[in-house]
Amino acid sequence: MRYELYYWPEIQGRGEFIRLALEEAAADYVDIARMPQRSRVGVPAMMRLLENRAADRPPFAPPVLKAGKQIIAQTANILLFLGPRLGLAPQSEAGRLWAHQLQLTIADLVTEVHDSHHPIASGLYYEEQKREAKRRAEDFRAERLPKFLDYFETAMTRNAGSRRYLIGRRLSYVDLSMFQVIAGLSYAFPRQMARRKPRWPRLMALHQHVAARPRVAAYLASSRRLAFNANGIFRHYPELDG
Amino acid sequence: MRYELYYWPEIQGRGEFIRLALEEAAADYVDIARMPQRSRVGVPAMMRLLENRAADRPPFAPPVLKAGKQIIAQTANILLFLGPRLGLAPQSEAGRLWAHQLQLTIADLVTEVHDSHHPIASGLYYEEQKREAKRRAEDFRAERLPKFLDYFETAMTRNAGSRRYLIGRRLSYVDLSMFQVIAGLSYAFPRQMARRKPRWPRLMALHQHVAARPRVAAYLASSRRLAFNANGIFRHYPELDG
Repeated sequence: MRYELYYWPEIQGRGEFIRLALEEAAADYVDIARMPQRSRVGVPAMMRLLENRAADRPPFAPPVLKAGKQIIAQTANILLFLGPRLGLAPQSEAGRLWAHQLQLTIADLVTEVHDSHHPIASGLYYEEQKREAKRRAEDFRAERLPKFLDYFETAMTRNAGSRRYLIGRRLSYVDLSMFQVIAGLSYAFPRQMARRKPRWPRLMALHQHVAARPRVAAYLASSRRLAFNANGIFRHYPELDG
Repeated sequence: MRYELYYWPEIQGRGEFIRLALEEAAADYVDIARMPQRSRVGVPAMMRLLENRAADRPPFAPPVLKAGKQIIAQTANILLFLGPRLGLAPQSEAGRLWAHQLQLTIADLVTEVHDSHHPIASGLYYEEQKREAKRRAEDFRAERLPKFLDYFETAMTRNAGSRRYLIGRRLSYVDLSMFQVIAGLSYAFPRQMARRKPRWPRLMALHQHVAARPRVAAYLASSRRLAFNANGIFRHYPELDG
């Protein structure tokens, strides 16, 4: 099965959670919108998919995964689909629901990270909501960030299967997503994370462990890995870092 | 199977999406935190569940569903689990992923509704973020609300199985959730919804159809249905309604 990923070509964004799973599994996939603009690929191909008036299951927004004829959107939903197929999810239904539950909580955190610099409108520039962002980021740093990471640290501590992973005895897509969260938070809030990271030793070890896995390391060193930048979800604005 | 629902007893909130599915299916369930405080029920029972240090799969926040020994959190995840068991989800895997995809998009909308009155911090009062809420609600009314509802209207139009439901030929949990969304938006933004609703005829018809289903109608008329209020997700502040 050759998977097709449709996501904005210039940011990691939510697409990165899918890319990391496909890369770790060495899956056969094409990152459609990042291909040179030829007749059937590139950004125009993504726009055609998003605006296709004949689609009976239209996506609301990227990322979108095409698997044969199946078209799936919503990041956590795509990972729910891919997890078992890529060997990155637990076997049992209960295990898969638990993985998905953690992934949805990661999605909530990611939305709050986005809103820390865009609390008023995603359609406006950061500069147009800077004052509000300062207030929201302050609450994010003081309340939300520690609440979420304390939670994930606790979940790791309670994992009877292993203390290296969030779920069971093996790497899952949730571990890959948690790597991305720690990487993104460390980029966006370097002062805050440097100060607080002793509080989350297991998450920090997970981040290092995932980064060192051969396929992830090769991916991170390749041109396929986009750099963090000021258009993505994780953005570094020193004034929001406290 | 007797299900146990754990959710705040004084608001509809995210718990309402679960309540509606359980009610429509006439499922055997107990709304734990709404029971009188006796030794094993009421709010203290919910707090014990949330703070249980022995839980190997801790929930981040309510709603939480207990099904036998299984403990499941995240609204859309609970509905993913309950859907097939209550006869409120498509049979095929692809159909279930599509239902879940729509439910996750509803969840995104619900978060944006919440943030329209709490754009800075959920831990602060509305009065402490009123100015920012005015700006965010303005964008929500002008951009986000129409974008989401246009999308769901389109999804209904494209449903080849039936134009009465969002998915296939039968009622699903997604239809029940969409009923709740329309009910909530009509409560929170009455002027805006009255003005714009001709744009979404199928969603409005779905709302009426669901409200008239015998079990839903009986539920809505009962004391089990909490009223909308100024503590929930859908709040009516006239100054945010444009």
